[in-house]
Amino acid sequence: MKQEHIQQIGAAVAAVAEKNRINHFYFVACGGSQAFMMPAQYLFDREIETPASIYSSNEFVHRVPKALGQDSVVITCSHSGNTPETVKATEFAREKGATTIALSNVEDSPLWKAAEYPIHYDWGKEADASDLNKGVLYYLIFSVLHAVSPREKYRKGMEAVAGLNDAIEKVKTQYAGIVKEWGKQYKREKLIYTMGSGANYGEAYSFAICLLMEMQWIHSNAIHSGEYFHGPFEVTDYDVPFIMIKGIGATRPLDERAYDFCRKYSEKLMVVDEMEFDMTGIDDQVREYFAPLLAGAVLRSLADEFAYQRGHDLSVRRYMWRMEY
Amino acid sequence: MKQEHIQQIGAAVAAVAEKNRINHFYFVACGGSQAFMMPAQYLFDREIETPASIYSSNEFVHRVPKALGQDSVVITCSHSGNTPETVKATEFAREKGATTIALSNVEDSPLWKAAEYPIHYDWGKEADASDLNKGVLYYLIFSVLHAVSPREKYRKGMEAVAGLNDAIEKVKTQYAGIVKEWGKQYKREKLIYTMGSGANYGEAYSFAICLLMEMQWIHSNAIHSGEYFHGPFEVTDYDVPFIMIKGIGATRPLDERAYDFCRKYSEKLMVVDEMEFDMTGIDDQVREYFAPLLAGAVLRSLADEFAYQRGHDLSVRRYMWRMEY
Repeated sequence: MKQEHIQQIGAAVAAVAEKNRINHFYFVACGGSQAFMMPAQYLFDREIETPASIYSSNEFVHRVPKALGQDSVVITCSHSGNTPETVKATEFAREKGATTIALSNVEDSPLWKAAEYPIHYDWGKEADASDLNKGVLYYLIFSVLHAVSPREKYRKGMEAVAGLNDAIEKVKTQYAGIVKEWGKQYKREKLIYTMGSGANYGEAYSFAICLLMEMQWIHSNAIHSGEYFHGPFEVTDYDVPFIMIKGIGATRPLDERAYDFCRKYSEKLMVVDEMEFDMTGIDDQVREYFAPLLAGAVLRSLADEFAYQRGHDLSVRRYMWRMEY
Repeated sequence: MKQEHIQQIGAAVAAVAEKNRINHFYFVACGGSQAFMMPAQYLFDREIETPASIYSSNEFVHRVPKALGQDSVVITCSHSGNTPETVKATEFAREKGATTIALSNVEDSPLWKAAEYPIHYDWGKEADASDLNKGVLYYLIFSVLHAVSPREKYRKGMEAVAGLNDAIEKVKTQYAGIVKEWGKQYKREKLIYTMGSGANYGEAYSFAICLLMEMQWIHSNAIHSGEYFHGPFEVTDYDVPFIMIKGIGATRPLDERAYDFCRKYSEKLMVVDEMEFDMTGIDDQVREYFAPLLAGAVLRSLADEFAYQRGHDLSVRRYMWRMEY
C-alpha cells in the first residue's frame, strides 16, 4: 500500500483513537459505495459492542438518527467525490460534531473537502488491490478496530490487505472458464436474481443494482439467503436464474440451505463458492471477511463477460450523468 | 384494545423499564414479520439514542452480534409462533441474558414458550385493527419509548392505536376504485417493482417479497427511493411497472424525487400518496409513523384484487409449508 494512503488512514484512526467515547459508527454512502461498506458493518457488528449502522446517504440525512453527535464516527464514500447526497451527509455529520472520514478516488473533490479525514484510493487495472477502494477500506476498518480494541486478529486483518492482489488474481484465473460459460449461457436472460448473506450480502446487492440493473438493464433483486425461504423462494422455477454466493463465514449455513433448495427447482444456477478459493497469504482468522472481495472480483469478471456477449458496454447509461434528476 | 393484550404489553414494558441499562434494541423476525417491524426500527432510530437494529432471524443467530447480552432487549415475531429460525433466535437471545419479547397470533406456540414476555395479537377480518399485529406492535413500541424516555408524543402514539381501525377503513374506501383499476390494468405483468423509504420501506419490502413474489409469483424487488438513483433507475422504461409509496415523514423528499423521475420514463405507475390520507383520530406528531400502516392496507387490497383478477388465490403455495426445506 502506498505511503500516502497509509498516512491518510493513520490520521483518521488517530482521531478515532483520541475520542473519549464512541457511541456509534455510521457507514453512509449510495449504491455501490454503500454496498462496498456493508461488510464493514458486518465486521463491526461481530467484533465490537459499539453499534455500527449503514445507511443510504439521503436516508441518513433526512432520518436524522438521534444518536448522531460528537461521540459518533461517520465513514462515507463516493468514487467521484461528487455524489451530492454523500457530500451532504458528510457535511451534516460534521455539523453535528461527529468525526468524519471519507473515502474517494478524487482528491480535493467536494466530498474530500467536506470530511475532516479524507482518504484517497486508486482506480484502474494497473493499481495494486491494496490501493483500490476495498483494500483501503479494509485497512482502515481493521486499523480502527485495532485502535479501539487491540487484538492480534485485527493486526492480521491489516496485514492481509497486502495479500489481496495475489488472491484476486488467482481466483480470477480459477473462474475464468466458468465465467465465460455463464456469459454465453445466460446472455439472453431479462432477469437474474442474486443471493448472499452475512459479509457477502453487499456483493450480492452491488451486483444486482449496479452491474445488472444499472450497467446491463437486466432486472434483479438481491435476495438475502435467510429471507429467501420467507417469500422470495416461491418465484423459483426451472427457468429462473440465480447467482448465489456461498460464503465461508458465520452465515454459511444460510447460503448452503438456500443453495440446496434452489438447485432442486432452478436449472439456472451460477454459484460462487468461497470454500473453493485459494486464500494463501490471508490469515485464517480474517478469511471470512476477505472472501467477499474475491467473490466480488469473480462477479466483476462475469459482468465484463455479460457486457461483451450482449454488446452492452458497462459504461452505457440512459439516465445516469446524462440529465438532471 | 383487549385487556389481555394491554396486560401482556404492560408486563413486557415493565421488564424493559426495570433494566438498569439498555445497550441495544434488536428487532428480529423473518420475511413479512421482519418487514412489519422495520418502522419500529425507524421510529427508535429517530426518537432515542439507544441503538436499534433489525435482522432476519437466521442472520441474527449466526452473526452473533457482539453487543447482544443481558443489557439488550430483543423483540421477535412469528405469526404461527412456529417459525424455526425465529424460535431459535428468541432462545438464543434469552440464553445470552437479553430481555425477550415475542409477538404471535398463537398462544402456547414454540415462540410463545421461548420468550419471557409473549404478546398475543388477533387475526382476521372481524378483529379491530388495534388488536391486529400492527396495532399491538405500535402500542408496544410507543409504550417502550414512553417507559425509557417519557414524552407526551409517545402517549399520543399509544392513544393513536385506537384510531387505526377507522383510519384504515376510510383509506380502503378512498382507494377502492383505484385499486380495482390497477388490478385490471396490471394483471398481466410478470414483474412489478415497489419503492419506498423511511418508515415505509418495510411496506414496500413486504409487498415485494410476500404479496408479489410469494403469493402471486410475480418477480419483484423493493427499491429504496434514495438508492433508486444509484443504479436501479437505469431499468426504468415505459413498460416497467412500479408501485410507489410517497410517505409523509422525514424522508418524503426522497420519495418525491423518485416519483418525479419515474413518472417521466415509466407509463406504469401505481402511487400511494400518504398526503391524501384522512388521518383524523391520529395525532399530528405521530402521523408519519402510522401512515405506513394505512398504505399497507391499500396495498393489501391491491393484492386481493390481483389475486381475484389473476385467478391466483393468495393462499396458493408451491413450496412453502408443502415440503421440507
